Amino acid sequence: MSSGHIFIGELIGTAVLVLLGGGVCAAVTLKKSKAQNAGWLAITFGWGFAVLAGAYISNGYSGGQLNPAVTIGVAIKTGDWSKVPVYLAGQLLGAMIGAFLVWVAYYGHFKAHLTDPEVVEAGRGADPAGPVTKDGDNPGGPVLGVFSTGPEIRNVWQNLATEIIATTVLVLFILTQGMTKELALNGLGILLVALTVVGLGLSLGGPTGYAINPVRDLGPRIVHALLPLPNKGGSDWGYAWIPVVGPLVGGALAGGIYQLAFA
Amino acid sequence: MSSGHIFIGELIGTAVLVLLGGGVCAAVTLKKSKAQNAGWLAITFGWGFAVLAGAYISNGYSGGQLNPAVTIGVAIKTGDWSKVPVYLAGQLLGAMIGAFLVWVAYYGHFKAHLTDPEVVEAGRGADPAGPVTKDGDNPGGPVLGVFSTGPEIRNVWQNLATEIIATTVLVLFILTQGMTKELALNGLGILLVALTVVGLGLSLGGPTGYAINPVRDLGPRIVHALLPLPNKGGSDWGYAWIPVVGPLVGGALAGGIYQLAFA
Amino acid sequence: MSSGHIFIGELIGTAVLVLLGGGVCAAVTLKKSKAQNAGWLAITFGWGFAVLAGAYISNGYSGGQLNPAVTIGVAIKTGDWSKVPVYLAGQLLGAMIGAFLVWVAYYGHFKAHLTDPEVVEAGRGADPAGPVTKDGDNPGGPVLGVFSTGPEIRNVWQNLATEIIATTVLVLFILTQGMTKELALNGLGILLVALTVVGLGLSLGGPTGYAINPVRDLGPRIVHALLPLPNKGGSDWGYAWIPVVGPLVGGALAGGIYQLAFA
Amino acid sequence: MSSGHIFIGELIGTAVLVLLGGGVCAAVTLKKSKAQNAGWLAITFGWGFAVLAGAYISNGYSGGQLNPAVTIGVAIKTGDWSKVPVYLAGQLLGAMIGAFLVWVAYYGHFKAHLTDPEVVEAGRGADPAGPVTKDGDNPGGPVLGVFSTGPEIRNVWQNLATEIIATTVLVLFILTQGMTKELALNGLGILLVALTVVGLGLSLGGPTGYAINPVRDLGPRIVHALLPLPNKGGSDWGYAWIPVVGPLVGGALAGGIYQLAFA
Repeated sequence: MSSGHIFIGELIGTAVLVLLGGGVCAAVTLKKSKAQNAGWLAITFGWGFAVLAGAYISNGYSGGQLNPAVTIGVAIKTGDWSKVPVYLAGQLLGAMIGAFLVWVAYYGHFKAHLTDPEVVEAGRGADPAGPVTKDGDNPGGPVLGVFSTGPEIRNVWQNLATEIIATTVLVLFILTQGMTKELALNGLGILLVALTVVGLGLSLGGPTGYAINPVRDLGPRIVHALLPLPNKGGSDWGYAWIPVVGPLVGGALAGGIYQLAFA
Repeated sequence: MSSGHIFIGELIGTAVLVLLGGGVCAAVTLKKSKAQNAGWLAITFGWGFAVLAGAYISNGYSGGQLNPAVTIGVAIKTGDWSKVPVYLAGQLLGAMIGAFLVWVAYYGHFKAHLTDPEVVEAGRGADPAGPVTKDGDNPGGPVLGVFSTGPEIRNVWQNLATEIIATTVLVLFILTQGMTKELALNGLGILLVALTVVGLGLSLGGPTGYAINPVRDLGPRIVHALLPLPNKGGSDWGYAWIPVVGPLVGGALAGGIYQLAFA
Repeated sequence: MSSGHIFIGELIGTAVLVLLGGGVCAAVTLKKSKAQNAGWLAITFGWGFAVLAGAYISNGYSGGQLNPAVTIGVAIKTGDWSKVPVYLAGQLLGAMIGAFLVWVAYYGHFKAHLTDPEVVEAGRGADPAGPVTKDGDNPGGPVLGVFSTGPEIRNVWQNLATEIIATTVLVLFILTQGMTKELALNGLGILLVALTVVGLGLSLGGPTGYAINPVRDLGPRIVHALLPLPNKGGSDWGYAWIPVVGPLVGGALAGGIYQLAFA
Repeated sequence: MSSGHIFIGELIGTAVLVLLGGGVCAAVTLKKSKAQNAGWLAITFGWGFAVLAGAYISNGYSGGQLNPAVTIGVAIKTGDWSKVPVYLAGQLLGAMIGAFLVWVAYYGHFKAHLTDPEVVEAGRGADPAGPVTKDGDNPGGPVLGVFSTGPEIRNVWQNLATEIIATTVLVLFILTQGMTKELALNGLGILLVALTVVGLGLSLGGPTGYAINPVRDLGPRIVHALLPLPNKGGSDWGYAWIPVVGPLVGGALAGGIYQLAFA
């Protein structure tokens, strides 16, 4: 695979991943969406099928990794780090494009949601007279959750641990699939990865919202910071390093476990 | 594939697609249905498995496209436009037959629903003394949603954009599958398309109800206009062009992206 | 396949089908079940995976038909009617065993449910002083739904039509799979049938509860009539012929459509 | 497969199984989890995809049995009992590690949940002044359900019967898959087993919470007894033998049915 193919494949694939993943968060969250309050099962299946769509679209072109944690795990397994920067560049830019497209697809709903008096009021946090965007009192603001993850209980080591554990399972699953050669050959491995992502969301998404992918969190957070949304609240940059570092550690850990236990 | 085979295959396949797709909308909406209020997840899985059923039934006969947006994307990819009219004719007629069968299968439930005083009252819209079918105040009427899509927030460009984005992902997914040759060969690609349709509904269905298929919307809308349903409300023809044009643009866009990025 | 193999395969497979299918109805309905009120999506996925389990278990032995409507459709397609009686015998006996096992697995829950004062009261129907088992006022009684189907709106032709339409789609799906030879060869066709059954439940289950299989309804109804359940209500024999005749007509219709359109 | 490979494969696979399975119970149960009250469907899909993840990860190494009931059924089928102790050791230790990791991933949520005054009060059972951990009045305590199963209605024979029936179906499904050789060959059999586990949870999980796997219940119960959780309640050792013996009997029964009916 040429670097150009990898960059384009990862860019389009990750854009689709984040478009559909952020899309289901918008669908379940925003006012006047037909799917409002569709629940956690809808969110987890939505993200799983987002992986399915993005990874199959890009699979024949870049392998469909779409996730720096996967890229690092694969590099540890194969020993080939030469294409890692191209993968990461395509993934981050793709994630930003995907988040931007969520905003386009739900444009009117963002507006309706963020100008709703109830939502605005809730966004003020503990101090009802305080500014809506006051970060800290109100980390993340009322719609950051459509873009990026955030923990229900803030605890650095705890939040890191949850992201590391979940990502380790994801990447270990991907790395060990090669051992079932038929799966790699018949092209259905991605479906199994997508269902595993549904499972990870159901099982380990409760505490932090399961980034398990650095660009899935960082790319949309940058877009949240840039978009001219009214009353959008802060982008919670104080938390932003955890869904980047946690998944990277998890990917490396999975690579290590694979080398030790399965290679 | 002969034109006769294509016509029959697309007709039967699209009839099954719209029967099951419209069926789940009826099941979740109409009074005295066992599935009433089963929620958005039920609707999205219902439409996804409707694609699965219709496309596998017709796959060996016409390829199981069932959607003019797919047909256009495939024509752009292959350069062969000769069979496009036959595909479209089978698809539109099939969609009408499917919508008619929804009415047959839920006959008593339509009647119970549309003569329920609460439903009738709600259908009058802003003016409680106004006629039930007064289009505009009450675009779509109380059961049009069983047949065709409609937006939660009316905004031409916004609604068009959402349909274009969602259909682009769908058709790009279908066009790139050929790159994973094993999937095309082992016949499981349709399952993946069906799951992607579930995902598109979960993620991008919130604003407009995701037509992502011109005949899926237009065929049932025609049937809605023709059926002798009491208090059925208007057929919302003012909106009808958007779920036709949006998906067609999306299909063409996907064909273009495929040619530029992946071919 | 020998007649003995067919009989044993269909008996065990249909027993598993009805055990899991009736089981999910018990799980969602009965008092003190962890799954009580889990909703329509749970019921439809439960029945779909019941088909999956029963059909794969018996597939290598009898083909895993488990449904007289399928058996008739296949006989019309192949022209071979010689084994039909053996299939039907295994299916009916298996369905009865499956329903009996539901009673065993949920023994305490049936008892808790049927002696609950609220349930008993509701079972009396229109006449609060009337006998609980008075058929007609209270067709079906409070737990018949765990065993057999019943319509929400009683209308012979309507109920028949719904069962015919849904079964036609099911059997047509099964008959046309042979055209995608790879699916038949790689053994995954049953998964697709199971997902189609989920879809049929979501889309066409609202009016009658989708028997789409004569023995799935008749076998458990016989067991309901025989079991010594307190306050169980009538077995609604007046309706019992519809979920037998409707699916049989649907299976034959699918066989006919296949011969005309696809053969 | 060497004993070392089997031990490591079963240990890692069962750890993943119980991490994700226990994880979904934590996600749906504990205070401040994003998935709190996501419902029975979330729990059953969570456990199904837990099987999927654990079994595929270990499949190329140990076969991915992860369950003593499966190991016994396979030993009866193959006649080879030599590796059974290695399988069981890896499975039990893996289940304990998985349960420990659930505690790590949900650390703050366990704390928040178990110090919530409402939860503490509910844990006291019938006697509001009684000790929280008083086993018997309050068998299982408020969070034991995150670790191990418990019946809604306590009845030894009934609870045993439900576990036996459900496990028999599971193991019979696994043993008969070899008859559909293509499934064994193309590596997708595990997906079908995972979906069957979803189905077993939906259909037969209502009474006892479907252990259907001795180590899945015993391993986490030991961890529950050891962990320093405040107000955790008793570990309900009086019930602990049922989800061990029931599944073992079911696995042996499935082996026997396979030998009699299908071999």
